[in-house]
Amino acid sequence: MSQPERTNIEKLGEFGLIDHLTKNFDIDPVFTRYGVGDDAAILKNTADSTVVSTDMLVEGIHFDLMYHPLKHLGYKAVVVNLSDIYAMNARPHQITVSVAISNRFSVEAMDELYAGIQKACEFYHVDLVGGDTTTSKSGLIISVTALGQASSDKITYRNGASPGDLLVTTGDLGGAYIGLQLLEREKKVFMENPDIKPDLEDQDYLVGRLLKPEARKDIIEEFEKKQITPTSMIDISDGLASELFHLCDQSGVHGFIEEDMIPVAQETKEMAFKFNIDPTIAALSGGEDYELLFTIDPADRPKVLKMADATIIGEMTPTGEGIALHSKGGNIHPLKAQGWQHFNTK
Amino acid sequence: MSQPERTNIEKLGEFGLIDHLTKNFDIDPVFTRYGVGDDAAILKNTADSTVVSTDMLVEGIHFDLMYHPLKHLGYKAVVVNLSDIYAMNARPHQITVSVAISNRFSVEAMDELYAGIQKACEFYHVDLVGGDTTTSKSGLIISVTALGQASSDKITYRNGASPGDLLVTTGDLGGAYIGLQLLEREKKVFMENPDIKPDLEDQDYLVGRLLKPEARKDIIEEFEKKQITPTSMIDISDGLASELFHLCDQSGVHGFIEEDMIPVAQETKEMAFKFNIDPTIAALSGGEDYELLFTIDPADRPKVLKMADATIIGEMTPTGEGIALHSKGGNIHPLKAQGWQHFNTK
Repeated sequence: MSQPERTNIEKLGEFGLIDHLTKNFDIDPVFTRYGVGDDAAILKNTADSTVVSTDMLVEGIHFDLMYHPLKHLGYKAVVVNLSDIYAMNARPHQITVSVAISNRFSVEAMDELYAGIQKACEFYHVDLVGGDTTTSKSGLIISVTALGQASSDKITYRNGASPGDLLVTTGDLGGAYIGLQLLEREKKVFMENPDIKPDLEDQDYLVGRLLKPEARKDIIEEFEKKQITPTSMIDISDGLASELFHLCDQSGVHGFIEEDMIPVAQETKEMAFKFNIDPTIAALSGGEDYELLFTIDPADRPKVLKMADATIIGEMTPTGEGIALHSKGGNIHPLKAQGWQHFNTK
Repeated sequence: MSQPERTNIEKLGEFGLIDHLTKNFDIDPVFTRYGVGDDAAILKNTADSTVVSTDMLVEGIHFDLMYHPLKHLGYKAVVVNLSDIYAMNARPHQITVSVAISNRFSVEAMDELYAGIQKACEFYHVDLVGGDTTTSKSGLIISVTALGQASSDKITYRNGASPGDLLVTTGDLGGAYIGLQLLEREKKVFMENPDIKPDLEDQDYLVGRLLKPEARKDIIEEFEKKQITPTSMIDISDGLASELFHLCDQSGVHGFIEEDMIPVAQETKEMAFKFNIDPTIAALSGGEDYELLFTIDPADRPKVLKMADATIIGEMTPTGEGIALHSKGGNIHPLKAQGWQHFNTK
């Protein structure tokens, strides 16, 4: 096996590295007046509001480079931020990306990361308009800010749900969490015996759910086409239970989920059983699915039933009725908010 | 001496920590529809453009906690980003702050950092509207994004300078660099003998230039009042020489600086001599002064002469005439761009 090429970051310097990494990125003049290259980027205001969200991903906390290819990581770092913009019922148009890297990373490694960032920019039609590249003492840290535009009458907050509103999720849930278990298992096997080939065949779906999630741009477009404005919305980054708690807390309501209705992919179910994990638990507490959880006025039910990839899974109730799971067995279980709280699990 | 209180970050958890740190921050409804607490923040578009800039500060690379108090660091992290917004002749209205911290930091330490962030928010009238708090493997990393609004006809880029335009700097230069030498010297003394008290008496000015710089909000306000629109502008973060190169490169012109005219504070000069550093070198290559460097149409000269804290230091020339320093001795020295390139100096 030939050694991959390795150019030290020092060779380019800070400005040279930024230029090198961003030289293939185009901007769309409809949304961006000026991108990378000045003290600040200039975005066109095309509606009455700018929407902004930011996230920091830290090596060893949010991702493991043993199984997360840098290109996929770049893609995912963008997607998780775009997901937050879509969760406001808004359209993202720009991102900024700041990266801190230790000298363990080469220019070629950064090229991989930025190739993934570029792929996401192209797919979601957003412009990379700024950022920063610096050294770190250890590991890789990526900070992405996503920016979008929206009309204030279409913006969907977490706090607009009323009792009687229907609870809806897009896609299927729990896949990313089971994908993580799979990758952690294979990593453990590999650490114990580097000669054993990872057993990930036919697991593209689950591994993909974790390593290369997508944000639900299509759902926001469908809302516009079908003239649906959800009453509240959030993206599912920390698990269904945690997100339901956010909607309830901020809307001042309670709500329930019908276990029977939670969409879980066949691949997720099968692998969950192999790991002895209840697929419902994976969906409720797993996180990182980046689906949208929203509530609708019951009058919009017929429209939502016609959506290709949305499932009504429950209902909001008056405060006092509890936040609960109606189980397949007919029992009512009070839910607990179990997010991925990194500070708690360390 | 009593031990300062120390609460572990784990005690609050991620969401608890964000809530705790941001609970005292107000937003101004004139500029911000919705701040912290949803998937994204919502900013009001009050002009035709949104201006955005981002910076990442890494412990051990951009700051040293041995002499940088956390409160000042929080203040500075905001200021350096606001400076970029002002450098576009725009007004900042919001920031987002993401922080990664190792478990070496307590809740009280974070309180200090956020007290500084809040002080900057109040002084510059900007709203903290979002961010992220996460664990890091080592040290403190702060990523700030600043957002502002501007009319596109007032925005000042780096690329608008013409031959004959006058080159102007605000404030005085080189102070932050000499302040850094002073602090590094005292750190070295302290490391060798922790019983020796740091000799920083009467050095408030120099130390303050490094540890608690200000962004030139007042200058942007003066531009508006005096109806001055610079032809190009940049903030001085990497040293006068480096910034002049950016203006020249991007405007397609050359230019010169009169050494005699470079404003250097008396405190900077005196301490520079003690360190055997040429004050002109400190101004040209030092960096971190966060003054504004801009060019004006010669017709605006009378207006600029009336500005309280701006100095005409040179002139832009046609390409081919070189980027040069006219020295006090009457010689012409070609300048080199020497920024603070962290990758090069490691």
